[in-house]
Amino acid sequence: MRNPKIPEAAIKRLPVYLRILGDLMVEEVEIVSSADLAGRTGFSPEQIRKDLAYFGAFGTRGVGYDTEILSRRIKRILGLHKGVNAVLVGAGNLGTALARYSLAKHKDVRIVAIFDNDWDKIGKEIQGVEIQPLGDICTKCHDLNVRIGIITVPAPEAQAVADVLVRAGIEAILNFSPSKLKVPPGVYVQNIDLTIELQSLAYYTSVGIEPDLDVDTDEDADK
Amino acid sequence: MRNPKIPEAAIKRLPVYLRILGDLMVEEVEIVSSADLAGRTGFSPEQIRKDLAYFGAFGTRGVGYDTEILSRRIKRILGLHKGVNAVLVGAGNLGTALARYSLAKHKDVRIVAIFDNDWDKIGKEIQGVEIQPLGDICTKCHDLNVRIGIITVPAPEAQAVADVLVRAGIEAILNFSPSKLKVPPGVYVQNIDLTIELQSLAYYTSVGIEPDLDVDTDEDADK
Repeated sequence: MRNPKIPEAAIKRLPVYLRILGDLMVEEVEIVSSADLAGRTGFSPEQIRKDLAYFGAFGTRGVGYDTEILSRRIKRILGLHKGVNAVLVGAGNLGTALARYSLAKHKDVRIVAIFDNDWDKIGKEIQGVEIQPLGDICTKCHDLNVRIGIITVPAPEAQAVADVLVRAGIEAILNFSPSKLKVPPGVYVQNIDLTIELQSLAYYTSVGIEPDLDVDTDEDADK
Repeated sequence: MRNPKIPEAAIKRLPVYLRILGDLMVEEVEIVSSADLAGRTGFSPEQIRKDLAYFGAFGTRGVGYDTEILSRRIKRILGLHKGVNAVLVGAGNLGTALARYSLAKHKDVRIVAIFDNDWDKIGKEIQGVEIQPLGDICTKCHDLNVRIGIITVPAPEAQAVADVLVRAGIEAILNFSPSKLKVPPGVYVQNIDLTIELQSLAYYTSVGIEPDLDVDTDEDADK
């Protein structure tokens, strides 16, 4: 696990900076100010300077950051300069979509193996990566130096998959199942729960009842 | 837009409570304490009591919350008691996977129409929902009383799709494209960016370079 003093939110902004810096390099922009970065990301210039200073990246006052150096630095901080190997477990609809998307787009976080327990899927390929039986996870992860596991299996199977991934030496898990995973300290879990995203989105529409109104008119007001 | 004093993080926890309450009702548990909810969610009992008090739901001291009443109340707060209609734009791999997943799982946030600009896809169905031409979005959204839009188109097309959705009266957008969308005040946007998730995950593995080390040994240390 990395420096715990750096907030997760700051880590999540690094890939955003990286994308903008990539665009700027394509546009042959050599120097970028925190104000320019703010305009392109929606974060404040103060926030940006603070984020980058966490990692020892200080722009030149009144000039800005060298786009290429900053990009290289962020890649190194994230570990993307070498590339990080990942496996995906669960080749259903979501897993297949994620694998296709990721294999087409990402060269720095590479899905090097896909696992499923369905013998109709095993042996088939997604973008050239073969679907393999679940039982092979441990060996393959060690052989391929895999650090990241992506879980797209149904909820009841997720914890068992996480346990195997941890035994296989995985350090970070992206969990798309709605299960709350138990992992030992030092293993980082990021959850993406589509049900939570959709249901919480409903709150921001006009369909919900205002809480205050609810208290006054609801038959449950005594609770 | 709903009560701005209630933090987004609290809203995001409501669907988690809802899921646990659903499990408890299946188990025929009638009363649940904040400590029980804490054990099942991983949030602290204090956090849970605070979240629920935002919405006027107070448990009975020393007893707890009535699972059925609390579940009904959370559904009403989120607007899920009536159901909320959503459209999905972009029937590629990710869009198709999301539509399948969502149509199979969600009865409260319903995808009622899917749009794409590819005439090979238009007219086909995903779980019984027809893929329609992009040009029909405005009419269909008004006809079907749609409040939520899910964007799964490539980045360069995302803003134009968002503009159309806003004109069509959409109040909340779930944006899977890596574009930063510009929308008028009152329209809520939630971004899920898979590249950011994967790249930031790499930070939590041992592949990255420790920032302090980086400053000392990096050839860019002068920046």
